[in-house]
Amino acid sequence: MIKAGVVGATGYAGNELVRILMQHPEVEITDLTAHSYVGKKFNEVYENYRDINEMVCGDFNMERLAEKCDVVFLALPHGVASKVVTEEILQKTKVIDFGADFRLKDADIYEKWYGVKHFGKDILKDAVYGLCEVNREKIKGKQLIANPGCYTTCSILSLRPLVAEGLIDLDSIIIDAKSGVTGAGRGLNIANMYDECNESVKAYKIASHRHTPEIEEQLGYAAGKKIVLQFTPHLIPMNRGILATCYAKLIKNVSYADVKAVYEKYYKNEYFVRLTKEGVFPETRWVKGSNFIDIGFKIDERTGRIIVIGAIDNLVKGAAGQAVQNMNILFGLDEKTGLELVPVFPV
Amino acid sequence: MIKAGVVGATGYAGNELVRILMQHPEVEITDLTAHSYVGKKFNEVYENYRDINEMVCGDFNMERLAEKCDVVFLALPHGVASKVVTEEILQKTKVIDFGADFRLKDADIYEKWYGVKHFGKDILKDAVYGLCEVNREKIKGKQLIANPGCYTTCSILSLRPLVAEGLIDLDSIIIDAKSGVTGAGRGLNIANMYDECNESVKAYKIASHRHTPEIEEQLGYAAGKKIVLQFTPHLIPMNRGILATCYAKLIKNVSYADVKAVYEKYYKNEYFVRLTKEGVFPETRWVKGSNFIDIGFKIDERTGRIIVIGAIDNLVKGAAGQAVQNMNILFGLDEKTGLELVPVFPV
Amino acid sequence: MIKAGVVGATGYAGNELVRILMQHPEVEITDLTAHSYVGKKFNEVYENYRDINEMVCGDFNMERLAEKCDVVFLALPHGVASKVVTEEILQKTKVIDFGADFRLKDADIYEKWYGVKHFGKDILKDAVYGLCEVNREKIKGKQLIANPGCYTTCSILSLRPLVAEGLIDLDSIIIDAKSGVTGAGRGLNIANMYDECNESVKAYKIASHRHTPEIEEQLGYAAGKKIVLQFTPHLIPMNRGILATCYAKLIKNVSYADVKAVYEKYYKNEYFVRLTKEGVFPETRWVKGSNFIDIGFKIDERTGRIIVIGAIDNLVKGAAGQAVQNMNILFGLDEKTGLELVPVFPV
Amino acid sequence: MIKAGVVGATGYAGNELVRILMQHPEVEITDLTAHSYVGKKFNEVYENYRDINEMVCGDFNMERLAEKCDVVFLALPHGVASKVVTEEILQKTKVIDFGADFRLKDADIYEKWYGVKHFGKDILKDAVYGLCEVNREKIKGKQLIANPGCYTTCSILSLRPLVAEGLIDLDSIIIDAKSGVTGAGRGLNIANMYDECNESVKAYKIASHRHTPEIEEQLGYAAGKKIVLQFTPHLIPMNRGILATCYAKLIKNVSYADVKAVYEKYYKNEYFVRLTKEGVFPETRWVKGSNFIDIGFKIDERTGRIIVIGAIDNLVKGAAGQAVQNMNILFGLDEKTGLELVPVFPV
Repeated sequence: MIKAGVVGATGYAGNELVRILMQHPEVEITDLTAHSYVGKKFNEVYENYRDINEMVCGDFNMERLAEKCDVVFLALPHGVASKVVTEEILQKTKVIDFGADFRLKDADIYEKWYGVKHFGKDILKDAVYGLCEVNREKIKGKQLIANPGCYTTCSILSLRPLVAEGLIDLDSIIIDAKSGVTGAGRGLNIANMYDECNESVKAYKIASHRHTPEIEEQLGYAAGKKIVLQFTPHLIPMNRGILATCYAKLIKNVSYADVKAVYEKYYKNEYFVRLTKEGVFPETRWVKGSNFIDIGFKIDERTGRIIVIGAIDNLVKGAAGQAVQNMNILFGLDEKTGLELVPVFPV
Repeated sequence: MIKAGVVGATGYAGNELVRILMQHPEVEITDLTAHSYVGKKFNEVYENYRDINEMVCGDFNMERLAEKCDVVFLALPHGVASKVVTEEILQKTKVIDFGADFRLKDADIYEKWYGVKHFGKDILKDAVYGLCEVNREKIKGKQLIANPGCYTTCSILSLRPLVAEGLIDLDSIIIDAKSGVTGAGRGLNIANMYDECNESVKAYKIASHRHTPEIEEQLGYAAGKKIVLQFTPHLIPMNRGILATCYAKLIKNVSYADVKAVYEKYYKNEYFVRLTKEGVFPETRWVKGSNFIDIGFKIDERTGRIIVIGAIDNLVKGAAGQAVQNMNILFGLDEKTGLELVPVFPV
Repeated sequence: MIKAGVVGATGYAGNELVRILMQHPEVEITDLTAHSYVGKKFNEVYENYRDINEMVCGDFNMERLAEKCDVVFLALPHGVASKVVTEEILQKTKVIDFGADFRLKDADIYEKWYGVKHFGKDILKDAVYGLCEVNREKIKGKQLIANPGCYTTCSILSLRPLVAEGLIDLDSIIIDAKSGVTGAGRGLNIANMYDECNESVKAYKIASHRHTPEIEEQLGYAAGKKIVLQFTPHLIPMNRGILATCYAKLIKNVSYADVKAVYEKYYKNEYFVRLTKEGVFPETRWVKGSNFIDIGFKIDERTGRIIVIGAIDNLVKGAAGQAVQNMNILFGLDEKTGLELVPVFPV
Repeated sequence: MIKAGVVGATGYAGNELVRILMQHPEVEITDLTAHSYVGKKFNEVYENYRDINEMVCGDFNMERLAEKCDVVFLALPHGVASKVVTEEILQKTKVIDFGADFRLKDADIYEKWYGVKHFGKDILKDAVYGLCEVNREKIKGKQLIANPGCYTTCSILSLRPLVAEGLIDLDSIIIDAKSGVTGAGRGLNIANMYDECNESVKAYKIASHRHTPEIEEQLGYAAGKKIVLQFTPHLIPMNRGILATCYAKLIKNVSYADVKAVYEKYYKNEYFVRLTKEGVFPETRWVKGSNFIDIGFKIDERTGRIIVIGAIDNLVKGAAGQAVQNMNILFGLDEKTGLELVPVFPV
């Protein structure tokens, strides 16, 4: 059994990770830590675990977890992981970080978008960007995984085949994304109160959301050149789910079948990527509770654009599920282990 | 592997059953039937099954299913099952019926509340009311299970210990229940359109809901006498979940600890029944996606009443989960097989 | 023009009051105060007022408001109003208090249920309980109005005719109420975050909610004797609305027509009370945005009970609308002035 | 008093029109017609009108309405109005049509996008596109107004100043719009059932929505040339509201202040257009129940694009409110009459 520690277990992503790990046949959770609930039973914070998880929230000591655990999942605010993860720690345990600290290879870009100093520049080179469908081979055998952001996962997987195959004008990419409120986390904030979110929709962090450089960097690798794109997140009155509506100008004269072949080239054997049929488009309800990303597209001959739609459960494929997928790769397990979750509907 | 047929697979309960059976290690679904979608792929109706369930909806032929399946689940409108389930059928297969036809032992009461003739009076005696925590022993070895209603399951399990132990005035029972909209089924109906349900709450079928005699009959068995009670269902703007707020006059001078001991007597070893701690009360969010029922209570010394709150996921413990629990009992499996679903939150 | 001051304008009830007063032909709002937003423009907190209300939130000085305003509305946490409203203040202005401080005539009961000392016992005698349909005549000419609670308004108006006419067993009254989340106010609280409320229902403050003694006192006046009743509030995933499902044993042999005649006796000429037709029951969606209360009932001959359903918009008839109705009475205006708001649906 | 007839009163837009007209000081509703509810009281379909509107739904006879009414509002499926509105009718009454039949000047484009024959080509020339802020002068004195679509109103008003002033690349316009479910109408449809919409988001009619040519035509007038643009509607789990996120490449080097000046040039004196401050963006909750459109924008120097956000209540400014605004213009009333509705929040 893999001994796993979950740091930041009482956030929505941490909590979802606990749910998935509890149903994973090869994992034993040894530690749950939660800054604000030390000494409190986890199931008094998340009562869904009543009677089935009697663990107590501990405080966070990276050293101790590194000694004890085979893998430590960090679900912490940005800027924390890069202070506590060191070469020494990584010699003792594997770390899968949900935060942004190790996602961007260029610490300057990190510091510019996040507005804080990066404290872990020395180990940045050791980190692998844990987008499993893209970096599977690089992930194997590593000690430090930067688990991708939720918007990022959805956006990159939706657009990558088009970028990699040179089908679109790289200057024309616009990603208009819609997220449920769990994406905003569990921190107290007037803006996330029930009556403030319910029955309304808004755009936020227009032209300034921190997932932007992450998407640009990863799609840039696929393109072989730097990409600057437009990313606009929106808040939708629902708990879970991200829908990314992606726009780009086609620069080749391609048919639906051509593009379909491109997507199949990349994803045909990817269990967690599901391509919709022609005329069918992803909806967040069909992936809820699962690690799937659904992808569909439409070519608009009037405008010369392709519109690609991607949908994920932000807490699963956008966070905890992908983290477990990374763990499975790290430990040589079948990538699907513990993740063959059938989407739940209606829920 | 148990060969299972699901009749009425495209209703919400049928669909949830498919989800659970797909994750059940001892079951193979051989047939899905759906009156309105014959010949259509199931995953074109419920796209959550994209790529992971390629079955086609068949038409319903009880005879053929009986030949082919070890167990047939019927998720049909009331009045249909009693026409197709016969002694001959039951010699060939086990039947777990989601409908009301075999729930009430007295066909007259059925005909009065449902307003239709009962066509299966001859086999009514063979049916067992499949409330597993109550009738476990009677279920074993049977061929025909009447799977309880959603409101019923929640109400009976919440009140039964009090009734059985003679703690409450049987004339004083009031059950005020609140259900999510999946409880209303998937039939086209203006009243269940999004904009008609959203942001509103209503009572319906006041003093006339058909689950009333079912609750009365089953609690009557526990009491050893006839019970007449008040049941009022309400529609709540959410997908899943039932909360039953139950009121009764205490007729013995009991403390919280006394009542707690009574509930533990009945449910201490019941995996799917979770008793909340003093001062904590069930909420539907903590059981969603799972087969649990959460139960908590409060004694009001001012009024001499006890208030018991029960919460279930109406599609799981209130329908498909309990059906699988019944199947597990019928086939001699561990009752939890395929049902150790951790509740999903927030979802 | 009546000069009105609104204290606590940035709470949900205060804000709704501003909306209604802005559309009232006889009122000029002179002051908006908000503890946490002093110096900030009101329309930067509530952007619905963009361009149409350019007032700045002031700090709260009762003395100054009393000098300046004809009426001061206090939408404050309990325990505050009783400290600042004095005989001297009431000689200078009329006060309509949204809080609980002046609702209960017995300060001991207040102190017991609210757990705080009552600081305004001397002026308690001057306050009138502002349930307009009941106390209209007493309200006229007064200086201090205790605006009723939301649950209270809905419960009392629903049950009062039955109580006053001696139709029901006073020991048998149970009120099972369901409220939207605005009822919980705008204070930061994990329990009221979007993802914590959405898609769930719960009971809270079982047998201990502070509106209980208020309902008991007022219905007690109607009965001519002390009443002890059961009140259970529930939180429903919607913004606005309260539905009260009220149960009582009938002690007279009455028909639907008899009871209807009783309700008409009390409410026939009440513009804001709407009785539903036989077989039709109130739903919160039909009163949203308006000052109406809808009331309907059903006699259950099986159980000997009557079930009465009442529905209001908690922020209007349950708070701001009723406050304006009180103001209209106080100032000798037609009671409907500024309140002929047609309910908005779907919204 | 203006005598008004409402045809199709039981649709969501028709119903909202009734609400607004009932509060309009210069209008008397003489007729409500509703195909499916002839002979039924309107307040039995929409119970919000209980006791305050006792009208009975009539059948639709254009001739009779033309004789009787000063203005007839048609809220009908496309293809109907063009059959019943004739020169003769327009000599007798004014018509404000909510449908698409008279919106597009080119009947060929209509027939192509709507897939039906246009039956009113002869009177197409008499119709004015009733986007009040743009066509105010043309509307005056006319008999036939084509009330704009909901997405259209929001999109055109958001983008028009940029287009008219030549600030953006006309080939680069993308409108990503999000609508509440009332936008889909009240027709029975599985896709609009509560459990199918709730907790999910989807794009629909990608590259094919019928409001596309309407936006293109109107913005084309502003540009002085033909425009082809991208429009993608999405369905959001809420009752009301449209948010349009509009993208375009800037072709001039402009600052925030420059663009702000352009918007003020067009909208400074428009009561119903509210420009947000720098850094603040529209959210649908702030316009609900009102006739306002809120507009805000951001210049992204990294990408060279401007992002404009517009928000309306789809049933008010996107339908009934704008229709009344048109009526006010037609009859020489102050354009705001009956429309100074303060947005309701939270609702």
